[in-house]
Amino acid sequence: MKTFNEITELVSAEIEKLDWTKQPKGLYEPIGYVLALGGKRIRPALTLMACELFSDNLQQAIAPALGIEVFHNFTLLHDDIMDRADIRRGRPTVHKKWNDNTAILSGDVMQISAYQLIAETPVECLKPVLDLFSKTAIEICEGQQYDVDFENRDDVEADEYLEMIRLKTAVLLACALKTGAWIGGADEKNAQELYEFGINIGLAFQLKDDLLDVYGDEATFGKKIGGDILCNKKTYLLIHALKLAKAENLAELNGWLKKNDGQPDEKIKSVTNLYNCLGVKKICEDKMSFFYEKAIANLEKVGVGENKKQELRKLAEKLMSRND
Amino acid sequence: MKTFNEITELVSAEIEKLDWTKQPKGLYEPIGYVLALGGKRIRPALTLMACELFSDNLQQAIAPALGIEVFHNFTLLHDDIMDRADIRRGRPTVHKKWNDNTAILSGDVMQISAYQLIAETPVECLKPVLDLFSKTAIEICEGQQYDVDFENRDDVEADEYLEMIRLKTAVLLACALKTGAWIGGADEKNAQELYEFGINIGLAFQLKDDLLDVYGDEATFGKKIGGDILCNKKTYLLIHALKLAKAENLAELNGWLKKNDGQPDEKIKSVTNLYNCLGVKKICEDKMSFFYEKAIANLEKVGVGENKKQELRKLAEKLMSRND
Repeated sequence: MKTFNEITELVSAEIEKLDWTKQPKGLYEPIGYVLALGGKRIRPALTLMACELFSDNLQQAIAPALGIEVFHNFTLLHDDIMDRADIRRGRPTVHKKWNDNTAILSGDVMQISAYQLIAETPVECLKPVLDLFSKTAIEICEGQQYDVDFENRDDVEADEYLEMIRLKTAVLLACALKTGAWIGGADEKNAQELYEFGINIGLAFQLKDDLLDVYGDEATFGKKIGGDILCNKKTYLLIHALKLAKAENLAELNGWLKKNDGQPDEKIKSVTNLYNCLGVKKICEDKMSFFYEKAIANLEKVGVGENKKQELRKLAEKLMSRND
Repeated sequence: MKTFNEITELVSAEIEKLDWTKQPKGLYEPIGYVLALGGKRIRPALTLMACELFSDNLQQAIAPALGIEVFHNFTLLHDDIMDRADIRRGRPTVHKKWNDNTAILSGDVMQISAYQLIAETPVECLKPVLDLFSKTAIEICEGQQYDVDFENRDDVEADEYLEMIRLKTAVLLACALKTGAWIGGADEKNAQELYEFGINIGLAFQLKDDLLDVYGDEATFGKKIGGDILCNKKTYLLIHALKLAKAENLAELNGWLKKNDGQPDEKIKSVTNLYNCLGVKKICEDKMSFFYEKAIANLEKVGVGENKKQELRKLAEKLMSRND
C-alpha cells in the first residue's frame, strides 16, 4: 500500500501533466494558475486510496481522481468571486489577478474539463460514477447557496449548519472515496461504508476549520486568524454562542456583530473571549470528535484487511490534528 | 415524420416537466425563470429531427435534447453577466432581476443539470455522446473567449471571425444533430454529414443574425436594431467595412467607432449608410448563401429518403429567411 505522501506526489505529478498552455490563452492560463497554487490534494488522494483497498491497478482511477480535484478547484474559483475573496493560498485570486469575467469563463471550462476527466472512468462503472459526480456537484452548489442564504438570517440552527457543510464540503470527500472504491471493484456495501466515512470525516474536517479560524496559529494556518469572526460568518461556534449567551454576554456579542467597521483586532479578541466564556470551543471539539469516531467506525466496517486501511486511518487522524 | 412545429411543441412540453421548484429556492428559481423565457428551441429540435431520420423511437433522444437546450441557456445566462446585458427575450436577465452571484451559481447548476440529462442517453452510445458534448461545451467557451478578445483588437480578420462564430454558435447545432443521429442508430458517415450540415447552417445562421441586427425590422427582431453598431461589435459587416473603406469613408467609420457617447440614432444611421456604400451587406449575404448551399449539399448526402429530410430542409430555409 502506498502512503498518503506517495499518493499525493503521484497526484501532483499527474496534475502537472495536464496541459493548460492551449489557445485562447486568456481562457486557459488562469486554470493553470489555479491548479498550480497547490492545496492538500486530499480529494484525489482519497479516490486513489479507496481504489487501492480493492485493486492494485491505481492507473484506472487517476483521471476521475483528477476530475474531482479540478472540480474542487472550480468551486473555489467561483466561490472566491461570490465572496469577493482577494487571496487564496497566499496568492491573488483569479478575479483579482485577471477579472470577474475571466474567473467566470475559466471556471466554466474547469467544470467541463472535470467532466472530461470523469468520462475517462473505465466504461464498466462510468454510469454510476458519472451520476454520483453530478449529484455531488449539484449538492455542492446547494451548499454554497445555503451558505449565502445564512448570511442574511439570524436564526440559523446548528443542524441547518451541519447540513450546509455536509453539502458544501463533506459530499465531495465521500464521492471521491466511493468513486475510487467502485473503480477498484468494491461491492456496494463497502463502497457505501467508505462514502459514510467520507461524510463523517468531511463534517469533522469543516468543524476543525471553524476551530482553526479562531484558535489556529496564523503562521501555520496560512490565512488570517479571526476571518470568520470579522465577517460574522455563522459557524458552529457563533451559532452556539448566540444560543447560549444571556443578558450582558448576548448584548456584547450582538454589539460586535453589528460593528463591521474598524477595530478588527479588538473584535476578534472580544468575540474569542466570549466564545471562551460560553464554552463553545468544547462544544465544537466534542461534535468534531463525534463525527471523527463515526468515521472510524465506518472504516472499521469496510471488509478489507486492517493493514490496508492503516493509511486512511492515519490520514483521518492527521486531518483532525492539523494546524493548517 | 413530425413537422418542426410538432417537434418544438414536444420539446416545450418536456421542458415544462423539468422541476425547478426545489430548495434552496434562491438557486433553482432563476433556472425555471430562464427556461420559461422561451426561445426557438432549435437545438433540441435538431436532436429529435436527426434521431427521427433513423428511428421511430424519439423518446430515447428527449433527455439529451433537453440537456443541450439547458446547456445553451446556461451559456446565455453566463454570457449576459459578462456582456452586462440587462434584457433577454424582452425580460430582465437573471443578474439584473437577482444579482451576479445568483447568475453565476444558478448557471453552474444548469451546466451540471445539462450533464445529468446527457447522462440519460441510452447506454450503448453514452460515451461518444458525452465526449462530443464536452468537446462542444469547451469549444463554446473558447468561442466566447475569442469574442471577448476581439473587442480589444482592431485587426480581426474575416476568417478569425468565422472561426469564432463556428465555436460560439455552430458547433452546438452540429453537436445537437450528431447526438440525435447517433441515438437514432445512424452510421458514422451519416452522423458526420449531419454534423457538417449543422456547422454550415450555424455559420449561415450567425451571419443572418449580423444582418438582422442592422437591416432587421425592430418589431419582429425582438431586439433593438443597431445594437452591434452601438457597441462596435466586430461583426462580419464591420470587419469587411474596415477592410474596404478608403480615405474619407475610413475616417468617418473610425470616427464613429471612437464615439461611444450620445447620438446613438445618428451613429446607427451613419454606419449603416457606410455599410451600404461599401457593399458589405452583399458580401455578408453572399457568404451566408455560401454556407447555406454547403449545408444543403451535406443534407443531400445523408443516406435516407428525400421525404424524411424535408423537414430539416424546410427548417434550414426558414432560418435563412427569418426576421427574428
